[in-house]
Amino acid sequence: MDNQPVRITVVGGGSWATAIIKILSENNVNIRWWLRNEADANHIKKFHHNPGYLSDVRISPRKVRVCTRIRDAFRQSEYVILAVPAAFIADALSPLTAKDFAGKCVISAIKGMIPDNNQLVTDWVTDQYGVPADHVAVIAGPCHAEEVALEKQSYLTIGSAGPDSAGAVAGLLTCRFVQASPLDDIYGIEYSAVMKNIIALACGITHGLGYGDNFQAVLVSNAMQEIKRFVDAVYPKHRDLSGSAYLGDLLVTAYSPFSRNRTFGNLIGRGYTIQSAQAEMKMIAEGYYAVKSIHEMNRQYGVSMPITEAVYQILYEGASPVAEMNELKGKLK
Amino acid sequence: MDNQPVRITVVGGGSWATAIIKILSENNVNIRWWLRNEADANHIKKFHHNPGYLSDVRISPRKVRVCTRIRDAFRQSEYVILAVPAAFIADALSPLTAKDFAGKCVISAIKGMIPDNNQLVTDWVTDQYGVPADHVAVIAGPCHAEEVALEKQSYLTIGSAGPDSAGAVAGLLTCRFVQASPLDDIYGIEYSAVMKNIIALACGITHGLGYGDNFQAVLVSNAMQEIKRFVDAVYPKHRDLSGSAYLGDLLVTAYSPFSRNRTFGNLIGRGYTIQSAQAEMKMIAEGYYAVKSIHEMNRQYGVSMPITEAVYQILYEGASPVAEMNELKGKLK
Repeated sequence: MDNQPVRITVVGGGSWATAIIKILSENNVNIRWWLRNEADANHIKKFHHNPGYLSDVRISPRKVRVCTRIRDAFRQSEYVILAVPAAFIADALSPLTAKDFAGKCVISAIKGMIPDNNQLVTDWVTDQYGVPADHVAVIAGPCHAEEVALEKQSYLTIGSAGPDSAGAVAGLLTCRFVQASPLDDIYGIEYSAVMKNIIALACGITHGLGYGDNFQAVLVSNAMQEIKRFVDAVYPKHRDLSGSAYLGDLLVTAYSPFSRNRTFGNLIGRGYTIQSAQAEMKMIAEGYYAVKSIHEMNRQYGVSMPITEAVYQILYEGASPVAEMNELKGKLK
Repeated sequence: MDNQPVRITVVGGGSWATAIIKILSENNVNIRWWLRNEADANHIKKFHHNPGYLSDVRISPRKVRVCTRIRDAFRQSEYVILAVPAAFIADALSPLTAKDFAGKCVISAIKGMIPDNNQLVTDWVTDQYGVPADHVAVIAGPCHAEEVALEKQSYLTIGSAGPDSAGAVAGLLTCRFVQASPLDDIYGIEYSAVMKNIIALACGITHGLGYGDNFQAVLVSNAMQEIKRFVDAVYPKHRDLSGSAYLGDLLVTAYSPFSRNRTFGNLIGRGYTIQSAQAEMKMIAEGYYAVKSIHEMNRQYGVSMPITEAVYQILYEGASPVAEMNELKGKLK
C-alpha cells in the first residue's frame, strides 16, 4: 500500500545521524533509531531532542522510536542507515549476524574506512553480513549537519552500484530543504569522501603554518587531480569529479572552519603534537585514520599522491610540517 | 647578453598591477610603469610606494620607472603587461598605434571582456594593434594581490596559444614566493577567468539571500560544469578544468569575502538595487559586464547555463533575486 510508512533503522547518535533523522522525518517513515548512550536515549524519549548534537532539532515521537539494543532497532526495517565513525562500526554491529540483515538495503553515511583492514564500509558490510551488492548504497554530498538543522537548502548524492536502489533511497532523503540524486559510482564516491578528509587535514596544516588563500586554492585544485588519479586507478570508470558528491563534498570540508579534520590539521600546523591535538579536540578526526589506509593501499597502486604522502609523513613518520609542506609547495602548480 | 635586464611595460595603477610589479622586481628587469593618475605617479616617484593600492609594497626606483604618458612607457620594452579593468583598456591604449606594439609580447592580466563587442582582451589586442597570436599571452591563477604583497606562496598560470612564449613569461613571473607555469590554452583560461566573476556574483547573491555553505559547495560544483560546457563549445580542446588556472581561480574568488564580485552580489541578495550597490562599493564589479557579454555570446552557442542566466536575469532584466534563485535551486544537483 502506498501510504504505508517506510521502515528505517538509523545507527548512530551523532550530529550526522541526527540530521538524517530530521530529513527522513519529513517523509512518511517509521524510524528505529539506535544510540549507544542510554542517558541520551532516555533524554530523547522524554524531551524529543538529542542532548549532545543538534539539540534544537525536534525528534518526532510519532515517527521515531529510540532503541539502545541494536537487535531491536533492526527488527522489521527495510532500510538501515549507518552513521557512526568507521572505527566504531564493527563494535556497534557486533551483536548482529547475516540473518539480521536479510532483505534489507544498507546505506552507509560513513566517510571513512575500516581501520583494521583498509576496507570501504560497504565492502565490509557485504563481506561481514552477506548483504548483496545491489542492496548497498552510500550517502554523500556537501552537507554540514548544522545547516540541515537550520533547514538551509542542501543536496545529497546517493551512490550505488546500479541506479535503481539509489533512486528509492534518494526519494526517502529528499524533502522541503534537501534534494537527493542517485549516481551509479559507489566506489568513486566512497573513496572520494574518505580522501577529502585527508585534504582537509592538509588545508588545516598549511593554514596553521601561515599559508594563505592563494595557496589553499592551488592545494584544493591539485587535490582534485590527486583524488581522480587514485580513484581512477582503484576503480576505473568514466566519472566527472566536478560533481557535487566529489568536488562539492571536498569544498564544504576544506573551506569550513567547523571541519574536525581541518581543525586537527591546523593544530598540527601550529606545532601541537598529535597527542596534544587529540586531547585538545577530545576526538579523533577521520582523516587521521584515512591517510594511513590510503597510504597503505597505494603501495599496491603506486599512484602519485604528493598531498596524501605529505600528510602521512607528518602524522605517522614524525616529519616536520614546515619541511614537508615546503617540499610539497614545489610539487604543486 | 644574459645579464641584460628584461624591459617590461606595465599598464595600470591598481592592486593587481602593483602586485605584478612586486613579483617582476624580484627578477632582473627594467620596468616602465604607466599610471593614469599624475598625483599617484608623483607619490610613487617620491616615496616609492603606491598610495592607493598595496601601499606597504616598496617600489624599487632602481628597477621601476613611473610614467604617465603611455608612449613613454612603451618605448623599447620587449614585454607589455596589461592590468586595467577591461572597460578602460581601450581608452588607456588609445594614443598608440600598431607601430608601438611591433615586436612586443603582450600579456593580459585582465579578467574581463571588452564590453562594446564582447571580445576577449587578447583578441582585441590582435585585432586592434596587429599583435600576432604567438606574441600574446594571459596571466591567470588564484592570486589575491594582497597575499602577493605579504609574500605568501602563490601560483600563476601563463596561458598562450603555444607553449613557447608562455615559458619565457612564466620565468619572469616566478620568484621566491610565486611559481608560474605555462599552459597552452589561452582561450580556455581567459573565458574561465571571465566566468568565475559571474559565479562569484551568484555566490554573493545567494549568500545575501541566506543560503549557506552546503548550497555554495553545490553551486560551485555546478558552476565548474557550466564553465566547462561553455568553454568546450566556444573553443573545443582537451582540458582538465581542475587545474589551478580554472578551478583554483574560481575558488579564490568565490570563497573570498574580499572579492568585489562576491561583495556586489551579496548587496544585491540583501535587497540593494544595482545603483545603490554600485554607489556603496564606489566601483563596478567586472562580473557585472561579464554576465552581459557571456549571455549575448551564448545566443550563438545555446549552451545550458542556468547560473549565468539567473545572474543575468537579476542584473539586467529586473528579476527578483529570491524568485530567480528559488528556480535555480531546482536545477542544481
